[in-house]
Amino acid sequence: MPQQVTIFDTTLRDGTQGEGVSLTVEDKLKIAVKLDDFGIHYIEGGWPGSNGKDIEFFKRAQSLPLKHAKITAFGSTRRKGVRPEDDANLQAILDSGVKVATIFGKSWDFQVTTALQTTLEENEAMIYDSVRYLKSQGLEVIYDAEHFFDGYKNNREYALATIAKAEAAGADWIVLCDTNGGSLPGEIAAIVEDVVSRMKTPIGIHAHNDCELGVANSLAAVQAGARQVQGTFNGVGERCGNANLVSVIPNLQLKLGYRVISEEQLSTLTNTARYVSEIANVSMPVNQPYVGSAAFAHKGGIHVSAVLRHSKTYEHIQPELVGNRQRVLVSELAGQSNLVFKAQELNLDFNLENESTKRLIQTIKDLEHKGYQFEGADASLELLIRKAFDKEEHVFSIESFKLLVEKIGDNPVASEAILKVKVHGETVYTAAEGNGPVNALDNALRKALEGFYPDIRNIHLTDYKVRVINDRDATAAKVRVLIESSDFDATWSTVGVSENVIEASWEAILDSIRYALIGRPAVIENREERSERIGIVNH
Amino acid sequence: MPQQVTIFDTTLRDGTQGEGVSLTVEDKLKIAVKLDDFGIHYIEGGWPGSNGKDIEFFKRAQSLPLKHAKITAFGSTRRKGVRPEDDANLQAILDSGVKVATIFGKSWDFQVTTALQTTLEENEAMIYDSVRYLKSQGLEVIYDAEHFFDGYKNNREYALATIAKAEAAGADWIVLCDTNGGSLPGEIAAIVEDVVSRMKTPIGIHAHNDCELGVANSLAAVQAGARQVQGTFNGVGERCGNANLVSVIPNLQLKLGYRVISEEQLSTLTNTARYVSEIANVSMPVNQPYVGSAAFAHKGGIHVSAVLRHSKTYEHIQPELVGNRQRVLVSELAGQSNLVFKAQELNLDFNLENESTKRLIQTIKDLEHKGYQFEGADASLELLIRKAFDKEEHVFSIESFKLLVEKIGDNPVASEAILKVKVHGETVYTAAEGNGPVNALDNALRKALEGFYPDIRNIHLTDYKVRVINDRDATAAKVRVLIESSDFDATWSTVGVSENVIEASWEAILDSIRYALIGRPAVIENREERSERIGIVNH
Repeated sequence: MPQQVTIFDTTLRDGTQGEGVSLTVEDKLKIAVKLDDFGIHYIEGGWPGSNGKDIEFFKRAQSLPLKHAKITAFGSTRRKGVRPEDDANLQAILDSGVKVATIFGKSWDFQVTTALQTTLEENEAMIYDSVRYLKSQGLEVIYDAEHFFDGYKNNREYALATIAKAEAAGADWIVLCDTNGGSLPGEIAAIVEDVVSRMKTPIGIHAHNDCELGVANSLAAVQAGARQVQGTFNGVGERCGNANLVSVIPNLQLKLGYRVISEEQLSTLTNTARYVSEIANVSMPVNQPYVGSAAFAHKGGIHVSAVLRHSKTYEHIQPELVGNRQRVLVSELAGQSNLVFKAQELNLDFNLENESTKRLIQTIKDLEHKGYQFEGADASLELLIRKAFDKEEHVFSIESFKLLVEKIGDNPVASEAILKVKVHGETVYTAAEGNGPVNALDNALRKALEGFYPDIRNIHLTDYKVRVINDRDATAAKVRVLIESSDFDATWSTVGVSENVIEASWEAILDSIRYALIGRPAVIENREERSERIGIVNH
Repeated sequence: MPQQVTIFDTTLRDGTQGEGVSLTVEDKLKIAVKLDDFGIHYIEGGWPGSNGKDIEFFKRAQSLPLKHAKITAFGSTRRKGVRPEDDANLQAILDSGVKVATIFGKSWDFQVTTALQTTLEENEAMIYDSVRYLKSQGLEVIYDAEHFFDGYKNNREYALATIAKAEAAGADWIVLCDTNGGSLPGEIAAIVEDVVSRMKTPIGIHAHNDCELGVANSLAAVQAGARQVQGTFNGVGERCGNANLVSVIPNLQLKLGYRVISEEQLSTLTNTARYVSEIANVSMPVNQPYVGSAAFAHKGGIHVSAVLRHSKTYEHIQPELVGNRQRVLVSELAGQSNLVFKAQELNLDFNLENESTKRLIQTIKDLEHKGYQFEGADASLELLIRKAFDKEEHVFSIESFKLLVEKIGDNPVASEAILKVKVHGETVYTAAEGNGPVNALDNALRKALEGFYPDIRNIHLTDYKVRVINDRDATAAKVRVLIESSDFDATWSTVGVSENVIEASWEAILDSIRYALIGRPAVIENREERSERIGIVNH
């Protein structure tokens, strides 16, 4: 029987300490529901004693239809010299209505005397009193031992004494925190082993990623006997982030044989990780382990034929186990087997004798010669394949665009786009401004299509890369633009190439929107109604 | 005496297998010089047997002024049934002119029979013959045992037999590769320990990051006796990337007490990592361990005062050891030493009590906050310093520009710029077209100035890089443009930042031309004469 490891997610609390991460109450509620579906055991929602947004979250979280997860509120132990029942922080946890409290206290003697400026004895009393008080109020209590590893290395006896107090007061879990993220797996293993051998209370680990070892430290702790892992989705968090649960969970379950969540839940890992990254508006690196779009991508011709024959030779797990998929990157057409793979995905009759196939290969060769690169632009490649096999969907066509960029004296630069688009037989004339010329064009196109495809609002451009291809010609050089777009279900990438950065960007935007609209029904309505609804002047 | 660990960098070879990573020969040469400065021991430059770009790199690399690093070329063992001296791949390594060859062979029986489709004996012979042949030609040989860990787990005896062949043939290093990145630190440690106990040849580790354990696996191998680590800068590479040397090196040296590079070299880690990321045009996450701009950033009020009092309480190392900096303190300023240096060059009175100095530091802070980076833009920095110390030369000023980009139907895009410039008291109105909008502006500016500074014809923009700073806002994101310019005597770089790619480019072009004109005398002549000579309509 595999042993169970419990997962404690703190994306909504510690995760929001990360640079650029900021979540509304609405965002937090959505993420909580998704994490519950995924099978997370504890969801730390915030620090009610520290801000009003968190108080609102806990209030509204009470009516969330959660299936398994317990919501927990964070806070510190009581202040020095204050009775727990008079402590505003502990009171805020009780007021939040949660059934599980997570409180942190000091383990490092140096911190007690300098940061807290109190005695070692008073710190022990603060821990004991706070846990005891919350238990007496009927709560489950998770005690987070802040700076535990640094404390232990500095004064082992005292660090152990602090968690003994938490145990004596009835804590349900004692979690050892590597708050500064500076410990290594060997140290973590030895210290956790020592602690586990001395305590009756189950032990947890809270690791940070300052040495790029957040995942490794979490695994080392579990192998040494810890049974709870705290971390965040996609590893967001202060400084270098927290331990990344998206990697910790499959490592524990698929590699080390622990029981964490159900197989079915694990197969939604990729989708859950992308969802959280969308909501948190933090772009997910393509190379993120297990869930990135490049995590099971293969490049290079020799390789690809082998991958197709024997996946296990080149993939450490089956991508489907974590809801990801194999991808073949088409690079300089090294080996047509790459293309065969793509075409098979689309159920096309791809063989080298076929006229459509020959045309397609020639087109790709010509484009690659001009500087296009399809290895990072799946969606553009699919559009090319569809075109060669007459499976295109003609959704819209651009008749003309005009762009005006102007700067007079010290005024800010003004950028305006004027666009003439044909959509489902109608000609739409529209104009928009933007932060820059590309943004102005993007805005104008969305405005023109929104009346036909209201869903277009859910599509976001999530990444925009510009690369100069032949540097030597400097400002007359060609640029390649790669755009990544997402909606809730998928992520796709498109490419554009031109000597003109505007034109290259425009091409990639057009491909992105065209790809997104494949298979989507248009809202075909009376044109006056539409004009009224969206305020566009048809012409 | 601490033990030495040797670093083998494969950013230029395995790193370029990463999605979106693509380096010109020029880029590769620049990175090689930088890695040599940093103290890397082996730099793998490419696979000469697989592409022509790599052959050119090795040719040009022979005249690089390297101080410590050895350049090595990659390739496979001989093909089955072919004599080494007839093998094109091995021959390409010899032709490349390197003194160190890195060749890979199979360790996994399953791979030998399926991917290679030969016998286990022939594979052993391929390894032995290839190593032996390269040694007989006087090369140092590093043998990469591909899929070693998977092979060992599947058929230990055979995996060990393959590396025994490499040893018998005289390999200088045997490097164990976790090619699929699926192994865990515990397995790695046990297997490396077993291998080290059986071999006389020094052992290396080549790890991938598919389980987010690339760094941890490299450390585990070293602790088990490996003495070479292969990896890439910033962990770029196929799928989820290679082991990230930027984290491996400080972990080995600062945490585990190995000797890797000098302290001085380690203190340039942040700068080196950023340089490589700029050249490779791969954006570096703010939360990257050790070198990210958020790696030592502190948020939250309670924290900050404690951080100021006792850094070690909240930081796992002193950021200066790796050339990074704490972000709450005064030094929001990148490379203050760089600034002192620059100011000294210009014979300025640079001290922190000075009003001009204070103003300058404030300006740079503000600009860095907006996304400017002066590490790669010396000329822009010098212009700022001159301005703060009232040493500017007012050569020209732009009154206005107007840009028109237009595409009608299938016609090519037309780009035109109209410019109003004040030069030495004269107002010059001019217009030009270009391949794209930036080129049109560049052409118009040169046309306006040419009459006063005929030398401007000798200035060329030699590099143009565009970098998106905050991906999140996609086409409304800010971009940073870096331009490199040269004339016969010098090369200088400038920077521009804006949400508008045109404006950012324009800023960098203006800085470039302004810098070029410092100290150059203008041709002040009769305006009618000039008009006639250069055909510009003055107004």
